[in-house]
Amino acid sequence: MIRLGILGYGNLGRGVEKAVAAADDITLAAVFTRRDPKSLKIASDAPVYSAGEMAAHKDDIDVLILCGGSANDLPEQTPDAVKLFNVVDSFDTHARIPEHFANVDRNAKESGKVGIISIGWDPGLFSLMRLLFNAVLPDGKDYTFWGKGVSQGHSDAARRVEGVADARQYTVPVAAAVERVRKGEDPELTTREKHTRECYVVAKEGADKDKIAETIKNMPNYYAEYDTTVNFITEEEMKRDHSALPHGGCVIRSGRTGDNHHTMEFSLKLDSNPEFTSSVLLCYARAAYRLNCEGASGAKTIFDIPPAYLINMSGEEIRAHLL
Amino acid sequence: MIRLGILGYGNLGRGVEKAVAAADDITLAAVFTRRDPKSLKIASDAPVYSAGEMAAHKDDIDVLILCGGSANDLPEQTPDAVKLFNVVDSFDTHARIPEHFANVDRNAKESGKVGIISIGWDPGLFSLMRLLFNAVLPDGKDYTFWGKGVSQGHSDAARRVEGVADARQYTVPVAAAVERVRKGEDPELTTREKHTRECYVVAKEGADKDKIAETIKNMPNYYAEYDTTVNFITEEEMKRDHSALPHGGCVIRSGRTGDNHHTMEFSLKLDSNPEFTSSVLLCYARAAYRLNCEGASGAKTIFDIPPAYLINMSGEEIRAHLL
Repeated sequence: MIRLGILGYGNLGRGVEKAVAAADDITLAAVFTRRDPKSLKIASDAPVYSAGEMAAHKDDIDVLILCGGSANDLPEQTPDAVKLFNVVDSFDTHARIPEHFANVDRNAKESGKVGIISIGWDPGLFSLMRLLFNAVLPDGKDYTFWGKGVSQGHSDAARRVEGVADARQYTVPVAAAVERVRKGEDPELTTREKHTRECYVVAKEGADKDKIAETIKNMPNYYAEYDTTVNFITEEEMKRDHSALPHGGCVIRSGRTGDNHHTMEFSLKLDSNPEFTSSVLLCYARAAYRLNCEGASGAKTIFDIPPAYLINMSGEEIRAHLL
Repeated sequence: MIRLGILGYGNLGRGVEKAVAAADDITLAAVFTRRDPKSLKIASDAPVYSAGEMAAHKDDIDVLILCGGSANDLPEQTPDAVKLFNVVDSFDTHARIPEHFANVDRNAKESGKVGIISIGWDPGLFSLMRLLFNAVLPDGKDYTFWGKGVSQGHSDAARRVEGVADARQYTVPVAAAVERVRKGEDPELTTREKHTRECYVVAKEGADKDKIAETIKNMPNYYAEYDTTVNFITEEEMKRDHSALPHGGCVIRSGRTGDNHHTMEFSLKLDSNPEFTSSVLLCYARAAYRLNCEGASGAKTIFDIPPAYLINMSGEEIRAHLL
């Protein structure tokens, strides 16, 4: 059994805990938290420790999944944790990946551990598909569409607008644009032509709804480049209809071999973004541990992992059942 | 530059030759044929040699792509060729894969070369997706649909019927079944419910068309389990409308994490089945050579290859542009 640790018990940490329960070869050995461990109730009966105690559990854990955020947690946590454990994270700040990779790589090589960074579905499975599609069809054009799904960043931005009590934002791919890409038209699409944004907003009592809607629609970086609709709903409707965190999307490559056209597509439709992401993280935790058992060390990304390491089956079984 | 050899100059060999022309890091060093080399005109200016002369070119070729058939050619050719070269083949006789893998593995380990078997899109990319999807969502159900596309085996079978001058068969997925799967209904589908078969037949003069249609529709193993339509056309129509070899299909996994449902899908729409398959073979030829340069040897499948080896980009470039 692979002994797994989780650092951070938010949506992602809870998702990993659930994914472990479905895996025959992995057991949850510890949850580490920055909160008071005694105050944290978790779903399983795994022990809960303070994040500060990780070093004491160095020999009890085969691989640690970091479930913190990319902005403030992972840039520090992943390079630190890989001094002690094989680790996997979901670092998704694109511009800082080279720096993060270098920091993890340096410490991982020193400790002899494996650190797999930027795992999830984008970055993650979508990245893997982009590589695979570009390798197979070097002459072509990539498209990525996201949604329909909740963007936490855009929801948070809407929530900061004056007069807003709560907000939820859905990123929605423009169906006509997706169809044009699937047909092989290779369109040039502006940001506005690819996605729309749908906001559901609970206004504070007496707030100016028109002003809220205008402020959201014109917010630079988040909304101004998109066609945005703002729908005002009650707190009850928010709870009833918008509590889930669905997401999804697709990567499409439209390419050619001479005169012949080919379309490759990978798509996801997810009821729970964090639970699916957690399931991907768990596969790569298995791979990190197995690679380390064979002597590998250093930072890795999804591009470096042989797919066979992701699944709890032998080479013979995989060839017999999945090839 | 990676020096590539091709054994067999049919549809697949010609496709590989075309794919090489689009690759910056690979050059076509030789085409080997069982025909008289002097009689073979190829599209590029690569030298053509007799298949019997391969051993003499042992040091001129970094990797060989075997473009023969699975029934009679590859079971002998791949284990033989891997004594001399790194090799890639598209072996697709599912029941014989363990035996073929063992034969290639034994010789490859002896020669110190890498032999990647069963590459293409099914087996191949579809297999890779099945593994990935099963790893991420262990609680779920797999579906594979093929088409719309030409099945050479079924076309050949129809061509053998008395009174048939020429025939082309298209495998067609049942759209309603695909939709049910995409919606997460997890249906149990019979063979008949998943695909239909469309035949286009040129009858010989004076042949009994009703009898031809009945014979095709009731042919065991090939047609009897399916709803088949037989359309009689002229030789001119066959040439004009049915000369291409399109294909495609999709792999779908419908799975759950607790109460949440997720759908993962990979789909292909190909104007030319052999040219696309050749493009996949070429990526894995690149990987075979690179792995061998790092000291690897033995038989491999698509499950064993780290994706980064498939593309002509450095680790830094991949992380910057594709992650």
